[in-house]
Amino acid sequence: MAGETLGLFLERARTRVDHALEAWLPRPPRVPPLVSEALRYSVFAGGKRLRPVLVLAAADAVARRAAPDDERRRVEAHDAALPTACALELIHTYSLVHDDLPVMDNDTLRRGRPTAHVVFGDGIAILAGDGLQAAAFELLAREPATADPRVAERKLRTILAIAQAAGPAGMVGGQALDLQAAGQAKDRPLTLDADGLRAMHARKTGAIIRASAVCGGIMAGADEPLVSALDRYAAELGLAFQIVDDILDVEGDATTLGKTAGKDAAGAKPTYPALFGLEQSKALAAECINRCRATLDEAGLQDGWLWAIAEWMLGRRS
Amino acid sequence: MAGETLGLFLERARTRVDHALEAWLPRPPRVPPLVSEALRYSVFAGGKRLRPVLVLAAADAVARRAAPDDERRRVEAHDAALPTACALELIHTYSLVHDDLPVMDNDTLRRGRPTAHVVFGDGIAILAGDGLQAAAFELLAREPATADPRVAERKLRTILAIAQAAGPAGMVGGQALDLQAAGQAKDRPLTLDADGLRAMHARKTGAIIRASAVCGGIMAGADEPLVSALDRYAAELGLAFQIVDDILDVEGDATTLGKTAGKDAAGAKPTYPALFGLEQSKALAAECINRCRATLDEAGLQDGWLWAIAEWMLGRRS
Repeated sequence: MAGETLGLFLERARTRVDHALEAWLPRPPRVPPLVSEALRYSVFAGGKRLRPVLVLAAADAVARRAAPDDERRRVEAHDAALPTACALELIHTYSLVHDDLPVMDNDTLRRGRPTAHVVFGDGIAILAGDGLQAAAFELLAREPATADPRVAERKLRTILAIAQAAGPAGMVGGQALDLQAAGQAKDRPLTLDADGLRAMHARKTGAIIRASAVCGGIMAGADEPLVSALDRYAAELGLAFQIVDDILDVEGDATTLGKTAGKDAAGAKPTYPALFGLEQSKALAAECINRCRATLDEAGLQDGWLWAIAEWMLGRRS
Repeated sequence: MAGETLGLFLERARTRVDHALEAWLPRPPRVPPLVSEALRYSVFAGGKRLRPVLVLAAADAVARRAAPDDERRRVEAHDAALPTACALELIHTYSLVHDDLPVMDNDTLRRGRPTAHVVFGDGIAILAGDGLQAAAFELLAREPATADPRVAERKLRTILAIAQAAGPAGMVGGQALDLQAAGQAKDRPLTLDADGLRAMHARKTGAIIRASAVCGGIMAGADEPLVSALDRYAAELGLAFQIVDDILDVEGDATTLGKTAGKDAAGAKPTYPALFGLEQSKALAAECINRCRATLDEAGLQDGWLWAIAEWMLGRRS
């Protein structure tokens, strides 16, 4: 696809993911109507689709590295990674629905719309999140029967990686630390210093971002050194993502962000600007992105969109 | 194991499952200390372990049918099904933690102890449930590398079956219908007649009970007709389980049940005794158990513990 730009790649990837999610999310009568409504309300809320984009970009980069001029191979890699991409967006969406709950971050606005619990009530919102997590694993395990025995093995590896990244050692553990740091965990407050803040974010958002690049690579047939390089790239990308998020919370406004700006400061949550100041936070994010570049170059993954995604991440305004 | 009784089988199965869960549940520093505490508090609360027992009994019955005198084959079937058994208990435990929340069933007592949200707060309880679901899928996907390519395929089949049973079409969907029926879903009340009640329970508890028997069979190498027979057996068992649960809520007392008796009537929840009366409810449960027997006999699964478990289910007092 000569002349393809990052913008075009992102648009195509998002469209593919949205169409696939639309087709795959269960409908009535298989699921109760209210559950179907709550799932779709949360999933189709106009998100950036960063995690599925990373999955597809990683699969694409691995295919390009193996055979630079073989467009068919890239298409096959995209196809193999598409369910993985969708599953990671479902996991991400479930985490947003639960994090927004009154007993967690108590957010009433997300991506410019009322959050799920405002629309459906807390009980149904909790269930919608629970259901999205299960649906993600259903999607990852689908259609195991194939002529290629390596595919079943790859799928199991992605399920393991995503379950670990989403679970108590990853995203769930990070959100629990965040709750403790915000003084919202009964009798168990926690003060985070710079290392603690980094470790919290590495679990809360970093683990799933790493799993996205890793699993995209696995589904495209990456060997261990390549998978490891994708992991290192995404670890830096995830950290930059979080720092930029904190910066936007200070500098952004609610119209651009689609959520309540200044919320972190109001809730006394630890943030990078609070610990390091705005300028040093921006420098830290830029350093992460430089390390993304170095990792991609060393691994021979410079072709494709992984580097452009890192630059886009650094410059994003929402 | 000549002379083994159901009591001994249940005790051995529960001990194996508890030891395996103790070894497999993640600990600090892999997970934050508070998360580890909340997971263990919920998992080791003295439950009946019905679902893991069913997994192991189904695997055992399939092995006995294939080779009645081959004890080694039974041991291998148990070993292959043990992670599946533990995973289903984790899924069940997560559902209890979430169902007990104030915005759901608002239960403060479970198995004779304060519920997780009472001890850890609502936010951490939600996260503990979320983490238990992820941990279940992690366990199901572990150690995919094996000399036998059929094992990876079997694991994927169990992940698919369990994700479907736990998700929006199964357990989550059933709990959402239950919330609607109890008038707890914002602006979306629902009245359940006898068919609606049965359909709600088929999702809420039936789907996971069926998945337990089915996945035990799959891991022991059952063919499609056997898997289908296990599914029919467990569907009847699950319905009987729910009817007996409703009866116990009327007849039982909090000391034996370990939870608040009379809660269903107080919350205006639809129940079998409310719809059919106590005597007819008991007759309905007994009919389900008779159909369990017939299914096992037809499929050649009469040896082992599946039938004794059905009888035990009918006679349980808690």
